Amino acid sequence: MVIELTKRQEHIIQIVKDEGPITGEQIAEKLNLTRATLRPDLSILTMSGYLEARPRVGYFYAGRPAGSVISERLHKLLVKDYKAMPIVVSESASAYDAIVTLFLEDVGTLFVVNQKGFLAGVLSRKDLLRASLGNKTLEDVPVGIIMTRMPNIVTCTPEETLYSAAKKLIDFQIDSLPVVRPGEEDSKQFELMGRVTKTTIAKAFVELGSEPKV
Amino acid sequence: MVIELTKRQEHIIQIVKDEGPITGEQIAEKLNLTRATLRPDLSILTMSGYLEARPRVGYFYAGRPAGSVISERLHKLLVKDYKAMPIVVSESASAYDAIVTLFLEDVGTLFVVNQKGFLAGVLSRKDLLRASLGNKTLEDVPVGIIMTRMPNIVTCTPEETLYSAAKKLIDFQIDSLPVVRPGEEDSKQFELMGRVTKTTIAKAFVELGSEPKV
Repeated sequence: MVIELTKRQEHIIQIVKDEGPITGEQIAEKLNLTRATLRPDLSILTMSGYLEARPRVGYFYAGRPAGSVISERLHKLLVKDYKAMPIVVSESASAYDAIVTLFLEDVGTLFVVNQKGFLAGVLSRKDLLRASLGNKTLEDVPVGIIMTRMPNIVTCTPEETLYSAAKKLIDFQIDSLPVVRPGEEDSKQFELMGRVTKTTIAKAFVELGSEPKV
Repeated sequence: MVIELTKRQEHIIQIVKDEGPITGEQIAEKLNLTRATLRPDLSILTMSGYLEARPRVGYFYAGRPAGSVISERLHKLLVKDYKAMPIVVSESASAYDAIVTLFLEDVGTLFVVNQKGFLAGVLSRKDLLRASLGNKTLEDVPVGIIMTRMPNIVTCTPEETLYSAAKKLIDFQIDSLPVVRPGEEDSKQFELMGRVTKTTIAKAFVELGSEPKV
């Protein structure tokens, strides 16, 4: 639920910021309104935490409510400032090769690239575990037949917010998003710029909680 | 880096909140200090965003800085309010059984319990993938020999902050933390209360970014 402040409410906040503590009467006077007209606005601003009312003193500015500050801040974090390096295998690699790469690089998801180096698919631990339950030896299973293939891949761009990327990870129940941009010669092919995983989000979460307390 | 406000700085904020806009001279007078003594405090409070200074008007309260609000909020979120159900297998299950459970329950990590139902080990997709590379058939591999075993398991408690749990996930490079409490009869045994994973953290991140904008 997002409630936007009205122009009048913003005006009231500015008056209280500049001149508070100030009574409801005085605010009404400044706005050429009656105290009764103003009552709902003052209630909203007090309940939402912008203003505090003190008996016999009046209203004063209490700072922006926590929810508003946090939300605004989260929406300023961009994928390009948090993304990690993508770890890739070629489409012709075997499931066995892929598992070895996954261990060597210590990641949970691999991106599969085609001969031109563009994104062809995504390979999760889950895909590889499923393959290992099959009857074929893993050396004989090409990653191309077990990966999730374009265009069924959820992606994000470097300019997207980290919030939006996190929401995709949750909404689509996936562990990793490739960070892509359209190829220069062929905009239907995607160049791989990085990865955003739940680890990326958890790191950003810890970073936000470690900010200086001043 | 956490900088705590001094008593004097807190006092100054209170004065400006109650009586702002107010000049540096006037604040100094109220505190029985010289303007020069006060200068460093006023600089810190202005730079950190608590106060704003306007020429020929004075200082007024600008609300708490974003970093402070976010950090304080994150440290109030508790594991018990965010944890998910733990998915368990018994110590005698095979790696094959475990992989099947992992798919059926759609989780990335399983907890292994002993005969009394206490936490015995943790089993990740990585442990299972590693087992699938071995020569033995997965039906013949008991989870007991491939899991991470107590006391080498990083855990958290229901009363711990989500921030602290997220930090453990990052610092120890793990995907999932069992939420535990010591057994009533034997405090060296741990009862399993839930799980906190990077998905839990990503969900909390999205929730924080979706707070009402008022």
